[in-house]
Amino acid sequence: MPSLSTSDHASVVSLNLFVALLCACIVLGHLLEENRWMNESITALMIGLATGVVILLISNGKSSRLLVFSEDLFFIYLLPPIIFNAGFQVKKKQFFRNFVTIMLFGAIGTVISCTVITLGVTQFFKKLDIGTFDLGDYLAIGAIFAATDSVCTLQVLNQDETPLLYSLVFGEGVVNDATSVVVFNAIQSFDLTHLNHEAAFQLLGNFMYLFLLSTLLGVATGLISAYVIKKLYFGRHSTDREVALMMLMAYLSYMLAELFDLSGILTVFFCGIVMSHYTWHNVTESSRITTKHTFATLSFLAETFIFLYVGMDALDIDKWRSVSDSPGTSVAVSSILIGLLMLGRAAFVFPLSFLSNLAKKNESEKINFKMQVVIWWSGLMRGAVSMALAYNKFTSAGHTDLRGNAIMITSTITVCLFSTVKATTSFLSDGNTPKSIQIPLLDQDSFIEFTGNHNVPRPDSIRGFLTRPTRTVHYYWRKFDDSFMRPVFGGRGFVPFVPGSPTERDPPDLSRA
Amino acid sequence: MPSLSTSDHASVVSLNLFVALLCACIVLGHLLEENRWMNESITALMIGLATGVVILLISNGKSSRLLVFSEDLFFIYLLPPIIFNAGFQVKKKQFFRNFVTIMLFGAIGTVISCTVITLGVTQFFKKLDIGTFDLGDYLAIGAIFAATDSVCTLQVLNQDETPLLYSLVFGEGVVNDATSVVVFNAIQSFDLTHLNHEAAFQLLGNFMYLFLLSTLLGVATGLISAYVIKKLYFGRHSTDREVALMMLMAYLSYMLAELFDLSGILTVFFCGIVMSHYTWHNVTESSRITTKHTFATLSFLAETFIFLYVGMDALDIDKWRSVSDSPGTSVAVSSILIGLLMLGRAAFVFPLSFLSNLAKKNESEKINFKMQVVIWWSGLMRGAVSMALAYNKFTSAGHTDLRGNAIMITSTITVCLFSTVKATTSFLSDGNTPKSIQIPLLDQDSFIEFTGNHNVPRPDSIRGFLTRPTRTVHYYWRKFDDSFMRPVFGGRGFVPFVPGSPTERDPPDLSRA
Repeated sequence: MPSLSTSDHASVVSLNLFVALLCACIVLGHLLEENRWMNESITALMIGLATGVVILLISNGKSSRLLVFSEDLFFIYLLPPIIFNAGFQVKKKQFFRNFVTIMLFGAIGTVISCTVITLGVTQFFKKLDIGTFDLGDYLAIGAIFAATDSVCTLQVLNQDETPLLYSLVFGEGVVNDATSVVVFNAIQSFDLTHLNHEAAFQLLGNFMYLFLLSTLLGVATGLISAYVIKKLYFGRHSTDREVALMMLMAYLSYMLAELFDLSGILTVFFCGIVMSHYTWHNVTESSRITTKHTFATLSFLAETFIFLYVGMDALDIDKWRSVSDSPGTSVAVSSILIGLLMLGRAAFVFPLSFLSNLAKKNESEKINFKMQVVIWWSGLMRGAVSMALAYNKFTSAGHTDLRGNAIMITSTITVCLFSTVKATTSFLSDGNTPKSIQIPLLDQDSFIEFTGNHNVPRPDSIRGFLTRPTRTVHYYWRKFDDSFMRPVFGGRGFVPFVPGSPTERDPPDLSRA
Repeated sequence: MPSLSTSDHASVVSLNLFVALLCACIVLGHLLEENRWMNESITALMIGLATGVVILLISNGKSSRLLVFSEDLFFIYLLPPIIFNAGFQVKKKQFFRNFVTIMLFGAIGTVISCTVITLGVTQFFKKLDIGTFDLGDYLAIGAIFAATDSVCTLQVLNQDETPLLYSLVFGEGVVNDATSVVVFNAIQSFDLTHLNHEAAFQLLGNFMYLFLLSTLLGVATGLISAYVIKKLYFGRHSTDREVALMMLMAYLSYMLAELFDLSGILTVFFCGIVMSHYTWHNVTESSRITTKHTFATLSFLAETFIFLYVGMDALDIDKWRSVSDSPGTSVAVSSILIGLLMLGRAAFVFPLSFLSNLAKKNESEKINFKMQVVIWWSGLMRGAVSMALAYNKFTSAGHTDLRGNAIMITSTITVCLFSTVKATTSFLSDGNTPKSIQIPLLDQDSFIEFTGNHNVPRPDSIRGFLTRPTRTVHYYWRKFDDSFMRPVFGGRGFVPFVPGSPTERDPPDLSRA
């Protein structure tokens, strides 16, 4: 093939390097697994940094990166598989039991955090000489740093070992994507200097609209995939078609959400939940194994790629050059941002946890203080999502012309590197195996209490109804599901084979594959 | 995420449409499966054409396509999974038993075919008024139309039912990729007006160098993946890492070949063979099922995407506008090309088959006349590979300014559409199920003779050595493999679990997954 003569040689070189580095990340991440200070993300970040240094030396300080950071690459190709897989593998019971708390954290919490950070930077930045920012810029900074990075959360919390915390922090990250879209749209369309009750209600209405529509789109796409596969029953002929259709429909849900200006992250997350509940049970056993592992692999690769890329991009010389004459300012900005981040998170985690606990009668379902500290701390990390947002706001076509913008970019990078390494290692340092976070701030007893009781049988008595109201919602959902949904869309028990669930740890019965 | 505001709205729309159309292709392809005139490729081609018409009407005749045909997209992302999967699932014994014949067809055959087509167009095109072409252009036309499209071959030949024909035609397509690279390089670097013996030997040397190096690179990458996975034995921890590493290493082999100006298709094909022989047996049962189906699914999606795209691109109005004032010329050029294609292929299939038969003592291993006709006919199809080559040669940045170039592009499209639909339907019309080609030109007896004897036991006697020399090569290879290769690189029987092979039809024993 004469493609060699036309395809860009430089892009072939960088693709080679990226693929080779990804291999290195997997192998090294495996070898360093026993090390208490490292996990796969940190390894990828370090390899990225090291590669950046090498490229910087080779190019005589001209460049440290192979690809220009592309938001499209990130939002269109890397993020969807990660979030979809999270929805596909999430423990659904745990997630829906804490749904109200997750919504509180994700919606109200993000607004509080955003407000605190915006007010903070408005006060502090005026005292520093870093160019002119208007209110819109300050609000953007608030929105960028208030958004929890769901990808980072996956790195430090393990849903098998800390299901409640995982569902709270990760769920918060998913829900606050919708909040971010609303806040960003508000910045563009509202007259923010005259914020009144009416505008506030309109914002609330926008959020509800966006949240419901995004969720509905995800659920609808998932149900369509379940129905189509159940009706046509591809399994008779080809596992490949079933797998292809599941992948395509999942991706389609995200892209449709993007098309209609909805929250793609919410949509694809709920699409993942619906697919694991219905579609996954309608396919052959081979398809089940394949989809489960393929989605996990794609998500793992995308995560590794992101961390590798963030590490490599952190050294980009252009951005540092414009701030090199005032290193003090950059350090100050980074410190202020980290401080405000911690303050803004504290300002909603503790009050909202208190509120959430008031509503819960059962002592074991309350969020104790130690857990609140974990939620506060594990949500601090800012990673690729924050980077992408900062690039979006403060650069045009990858260039950082204005000094203020350059400082914001480098500060974001500093905050990302610092918070990721700090938060991750603080979790890892007390565990012996990666992700097996025996949460240092949390005693084991309160956990066992939490994780142990999710096998409690359905309440069949009035006593059960009174003591466990959420269980009862679940009971009625199961009745509805069994009577109306599963006969139409399939699911466990409504298809020929007796299946395992994608979240079950036991090996599925493969004898009929 | 505020990505919506920045990411190109048009690209989101076209991605949505593409994903939705791919879903439609899968569902419709399934529903039309019983139809004798359709298969999944033709369905995709038709859906692409229909979409092209709709876009043409909506845009008032301005445009019919959503994406500009990108060679990078094709050669860097779509082709590697297809060829790798072919290598991964190929019946290795059948392939290597016919290795000499495949090399004859792929190397010598392509040169003969290229020569015939070049001489033909040189004669005919001078009589038509289609702009000025030099010798390089004529040679390029020869090389483009001499290259068998491996992707199309996969569509009409089924390796389970016609293993010999499949291995011959598909193998030819793989080997002739190396030939194409050599021919194209030769066009650029040699003084073609003074071709002498020395230059011919140099060309032969180039081919051997390219063929051996490409093969070695593929084999080496495959062996490294087998060794790494066997040594680290990722399976203890994560199926996802094994799957990710296999995917990355396979892709790396292709990209390395592109980097070093080798034949990526040859490299990734041999990498697939080595991975299915060693690496695949070193991973967990879940990984085996996942890789087998994931590679097949990705290949299937890439194929469907290509046919959909070719269909959509065929109507692109720009290309047809410049030829619309002389439709007669375009038809003449297309007809001449199809005629020369058939002549060029006939010029090597029949003589080389005769030569190949001379070397075979066993009557059942000879290629009879009916089979030769099938090889001649099934290799006639030109599809996306030819399109990509034609675009590469006759357009700059997607534009067809010169009239001669526009005619060449439209003629290539005509040849592709005509040959694909013609060849595919001629195969399908005599079979009842898709791909279950009970080759119309071939009686069943000669097949059974062929396919039935690949379970003949290894020769342990002198008689076996004399009557079945290729079997004996296989015997010594097995001894070498068992004594030296498998202890180092793993493989069937050298890893804890008893595995199936990716080409086996029986369901593997999954009880230990």
